[in-house]
Amino acid sequence: MGELPNRVEIREVGPRDGLQNEAPVPTAAKVALLAALARTGVRRIEAVSFVHPMVIPQMADADEVWRQAEKSDAVRYSALVPNSRGAQRALAAGFTDIEVVVSASDTHNRKNVNRSTAESLDDIAALVGPLHEAGATVEVTIATSFGCPYEGDIDPARVAAIVDRAVADGADRVAFGDTTGMATPRRVREVVTAVRERHPRVPLLLHFHNTRGTALANMLTALELGITEYDASVGGLGGCPYAPGATGNVATEEVVHMLHDMGIETGIDLDALLEAARLAERLVRRELPSGVLRAGPRTRTVAP
Amino acid sequence: MGELPNRVEIREVGPRDGLQNEAPVPTAAKVALLAALARTGVRRIEAVSFVHPMVIPQMADADEVWRQAEKSDAVRYSALVPNSRGAQRALAAGFTDIEVVVSASDTHNRKNVNRSTAESLDDIAALVGPLHEAGATVEVTIATSFGCPYEGDIDPARVAAIVDRAVADGADRVAFGDTTGMATPRRVREVVTAVRERHPRVPLLLHFHNTRGTALANMLTALELGITEYDASVGGLGGCPYAPGATGNVATEEVVHMLHDMGIETGIDLDALLEAARLAERLVRRELPSGVLRAGPRTRTVAP
Repeated sequence: MGELPNRVEIREVGPRDGLQNEAPVPTAAKVALLAALARTGVRRIEAVSFVHPMVIPQMADADEVWRQAEKSDAVRYSALVPNSRGAQRALAAGFTDIEVVVSASDTHNRKNVNRSTAESLDDIAALVGPLHEAGATVEVTIATSFGCPYEGDIDPARVAAIVDRAVADGADRVAFGDTTGMATPRRVREVVTAVRERHPRVPLLLHFHNTRGTALANMLTALELGITEYDASVGGLGGCPYAPGATGNVATEEVVHMLHDMGIETGIDLDALLEAARLAERLVRRELPSGVLRAGPRTRTVAP
Repeated sequence: MGELPNRVEIREVGPRDGLQNEAPVPTAAKVALLAALARTGVRRIEAVSFVHPMVIPQMADADEVWRQAEKSDAVRYSALVPNSRGAQRALAAGFTDIEVVVSASDTHNRKNVNRSTAESLDDIAALVGPLHEAGATVEVTIATSFGCPYEGDIDPARVAAIVDRAVADGADRVAFGDTTGMATPRRVREVVTAVRERHPRVPLLLHFHNTRGTALANMLTALELGITEYDASVGGLGGCPYAPGATGNVATEEVVHMLHDMGIETGIDLDALLEAARLAERLVRRELPSGVLRAGPRTRTVAP
């Protein structure tokens, strides 16, 4: 495994992507989770999204969460925004790391925002300038990069062309969302290779779900391809909105547990992370799908 | 992924290893599960174990299960035996593929059978001759190969030395058990490399658990190392006896789903396998941990 990276950067997405797909929790719970996560040593946290409260009631208190949150200087916090109004709110709240989303699948994009992928890319292009002028960076997340529940696999060339457009329009980073857990080692290799060929230097981040059990196999494949930035969600917060009862986001503990065992640093303290996962489980009042949370790390031996 | 094998052989262990770690089910249920599995195209099934009914009541009806089972000519059925009495029962029942177990961890072996690893290897040595004379083959399964809950990692050289001994004593095949789900890509590489160096031609089979989410990442690592034989359990039957509520055996559907997506043949029909998994779920009356059972295969697209 000599070719693998020595260090990987995890972005913790439990507070936003995780909680957005759970039953609503109180503001104080979100503030507590953000604080617990900052204590783990993680260096990036997706904190909130500034979306319409009618569309996503789970994030209706985003301004208040962020106002009350203890901010750690060691953490870069990001916010997701769907449009210019959300971007204005994020800037006003003080965020300088902004994420916007477009779907690689035209059908999925239309279902989500009633616009074509091309129209959403136009919207994003219009957002980048003002955000840059305000001193913020922009990450474009490409949803359904690894497969669409309506269209199946999207041509990797189409995914790469969306990256072309986003980069040409000024995106600082690109992320690839495994929206419904369709990523597999084969698909990860196809997409990353297609994008890397055309954009060898653009920072790429991968966001995997564990819906079909492949999350860590996908990550292993991506590590072999040299990818060093990954999303993960504490406890595996965030069910799969498309398949009731199914798993969504890969659990941060499972990611960190495997990486550390492989000698790959994350800067995250696994014990502190497990404490945050136990807190997350109490907050959402359901058993979260994290195996490491359930069984403990493999290093935790017991007396015979 | 050009270096990966084109074909992998799965041994379905749900009827034995799976059901042995679930609440007991009726004989007819076991017979029905064996029949459903034979229809999937799988070529090897671990059918029963011949163990003392006081120790493992779930397998008390092994003789009756096997007598009633519809045997498929396309399937090689195996039985696990703990000792010579079990071996006699297995031979009398007509089995010619016999499995015996020893633990790489001395502490684990003593906890399990109140004997040292060396003593268990002596017992196995004494079993091989009579089994071979009766026309049977013997597979030695080395439990805790990827880690012991009491001792932690066992020196890979010790695992390899157990293989030395088993092979010298006439074992036809060797399997490596991830008894409590401690296997990781790093550990798989260490163990397989250590054994392969000394035994380049002995058939090796890997048995993974998904307790900490790494099962398919482990398999990916093993595929890269050229291993082509794996155990898996329909639906993920068989909880983890060491961690209540935790996952045990990797689900056969998740294995087959990933392999087929990677262009690796198994001979198994995924739809028939999902049908068997739904049956398994009904038989044990609990939700099984298989993501592909929950969410369906990634190829199953829906209308927008």
